[in-house]
Amino acid sequence: MKHGGDVLSYADQYAGEIIDFSSNINPLGAPKALKEKLLSGFEDVLTYPDIQYRDLKKDIGEYLGCSNTEVIVGNGAVEIIDNIIKMFNRVVAAVPCFGEYLERAKINKKTLVLTNMGENFKINISSIEGVLEEGDLLILGNPNNPTGKRIQRDMLMDIYNLVLSKNAFLLLDEAFYEFSPTDYDSIELFNRKSNVCIIRAATKFFALPGIRLGYAWAEREVVKNYEALSLPWSVNCFAHMAGCLIFKDREYIEQTKKYVGEQRAYLLRNLAKISYLKVFESDANFILIKLINYNEDELFNFLVSNGILIRRAFSFEGLDYSYLRIAVKDYNSNEKLLRLLKEFEKWKQ
Amino acid sequence: MKHGGDVLSYADQYAGEIIDFSSNINPLGAPKALKEKLLSGFEDVLTYPDIQYRDLKKDIGEYLGCSNTEVIVGNGAVEIIDNIIKMFNRVVAAVPCFGEYLERAKINKKTLVLTNMGENFKINISSIEGVLEEGDLLILGNPNNPTGKRIQRDMLMDIYNLVLSKNAFLLLDEAFYEFSPTDYDSIELFNRKSNVCIIRAATKFFALPGIRLGYAWAEREVVKNYEALSLPWSVNCFAHMAGCLIFKDREYIEQTKKYVGEQRAYLLRNLAKISYLKVFESDANFILIKLINYNEDELFNFLVSNGILIRRAFSFEGLDYSYLRIAVKDYNSNEKLLRLLKEFEKWKQ
Repeated sequence: MKHGGDVLSYADQYAGEIIDFSSNINPLGAPKALKEKLLSGFEDVLTYPDIQYRDLKKDIGEYLGCSNTEVIVGNGAVEIIDNIIKMFNRVVAAVPCFGEYLERAKINKKTLVLTNMGENFKINISSIEGVLEEGDLLILGNPNNPTGKRIQRDMLMDIYNLVLSKNAFLLLDEAFYEFSPTDYDSIELFNRKSNVCIIRAATKFFALPGIRLGYAWAEREVVKNYEALSLPWSVNCFAHMAGCLIFKDREYIEQTKKYVGEQRAYLLRNLAKISYLKVFESDANFILIKLINYNEDELFNFLVSNGILIRRAFSFEGLDYSYLRIAVKDYNSNEKLLRLLKEFEKWKQ
Repeated sequence: MKHGGDVLSYADQYAGEIIDFSSNINPLGAPKALKEKLLSGFEDVLTYPDIQYRDLKKDIGEYLGCSNTEVIVGNGAVEIIDNIIKMFNRVVAAVPCFGEYLERAKINKKTLVLTNMGENFKINISSIEGVLEEGDLLILGNPNNPTGKRIQRDMLMDIYNLVLSKNAFLLLDEAFYEFSPTDYDSIELFNRKSNVCIIRAATKFFALPGIRLGYAWAEREVVKNYEALSLPWSVNCFAHMAGCLIFKDREYIEQTKKYVGEQRAYLLRNLAKISYLKVFESDANFILIKLINYNEDELFNFLVSNGILIRRAFSFEGLDYSYLRIAVKDYNSNEKLLRLLKEFEKWKQ
């Protein structure tokens, strides 16, 4: 399983609808106003998207608190990751991390240098320092997928200063930004700073994976270089339309932050009570767990046959078969998952 | 003007709505059934697109008359062009042609070899033969943009045999396929043949530029190699949904072919009567013209100030400022264009 969300491949193993804990999407669903807007905006399909994405960049700039000239848009965050990678010769990443950093580096024939996270998957700056060279691209998830950890502010500044001292470039993948605690805003932190780009996405927080809208902040010069190599019209008309609407829905944004925060706490508290699991603290809308005694295949299949799909995590470089990742979903789904995890233990005894 | 359709950039030069003759979209608009389907399919936005695009490939395969394992899908034809280019070291093209063949070859740091079209922009096979080497990618538009010429069947087989003899690869860009006469179907012609890929698109014929759906036919092995390097989820949920609907609408397809054929004939017949124009025959839904006496800027601005945007063609390698491209649109728009072209002549005398 290279990516979560492939529920179709398991449809024949459960009679009802499978609850998808393998991909990490806002359990409250997409903003309601979007449905109405989509219908009224049907005529926009008939014309090309504005090739310069003027309105969209303006609205994203307002949401991020930056100028529209500092905004990059793409066909999902993964297209932006791919294009940024193209601009460098070597890619440095700390595993475990989102598989596409490694995959796109390989496909673009870049030299890939991997370092390991430290204990409990904290960033290990000295191991990064040991490999980072001039002109390198360092990619870090913040919070990181699949470990769920957000980089502490001081650590982030240390990493940035290291990057600057080597004249390298830092790409922060913040696709899960809005789910995490708001002790700092990285875009504010790096305001007018060079050698850094911060990616965000509508996919996860706004529950719009199908719509394909990724965006990023970087200084103007980087945006220009990016646009010189990116494909024309890569953002579709619906993503454009949605992007001009969703960022203004403050109520939905606040409601989601509160709900996911509560459900994450509920899951973390109750997962900790299950004796055969090691649970890793998370700042995102997913939680990494490690099986202590049991066989991962057995638990995975037990859950699928009861209508729950979780994410096997062995495909993440640096993790073995004992790791699994679960999304933070709505209360009923979370409760069902916890109940089944307890049942599994009894069933095994 | 690198691409047509950028009406926004001219909005301040005309008080009303500008008629866009600069991009080549079906004048009958998108299939009606799509609007209803889009609303009912809103829930699809909440899940990831099927990462394997199973339904979509099945429906495209049925439309093209090939197996779903021979189908490539992409975020518009231009993404497919880009990914195919990545698979080769040298790109050969015959100019004038769609600018993205050249642009993407350069951006992907490929060696770009250009040959010239022959008289009246017919394909010149001997000039291609002179430069084509083993392992090269030859890209040809069929019909070609901006010249509008479809490659004759015998000529196409000669080109393919040349490609095979050199162990090169032929990429036919047939984004305007359905608009052109159906004396042969290239996918039928190349059934089970290797070293060839044929791109088509929903953009133009189905009037859905905003939705971003490109697709292509190639043998299984090529499809596999393609998918090993393409981005995940590159086709958005709306393009997926539309693709599972539009190809079955035979009535819309036949109606469009008939209407555009009639309007093209009407435009060609009447453009030929305008003494200051040289008109090139076309098999597509656009027509290349050359100004004989007048200044291109003057005509372009005269039309914009009267609410019509046409495509300046000097940005196409191999064409100078005297060339312009106009789309085949609905009768009223075409009639207005012809009227203004005649007025321009009187105004100049």
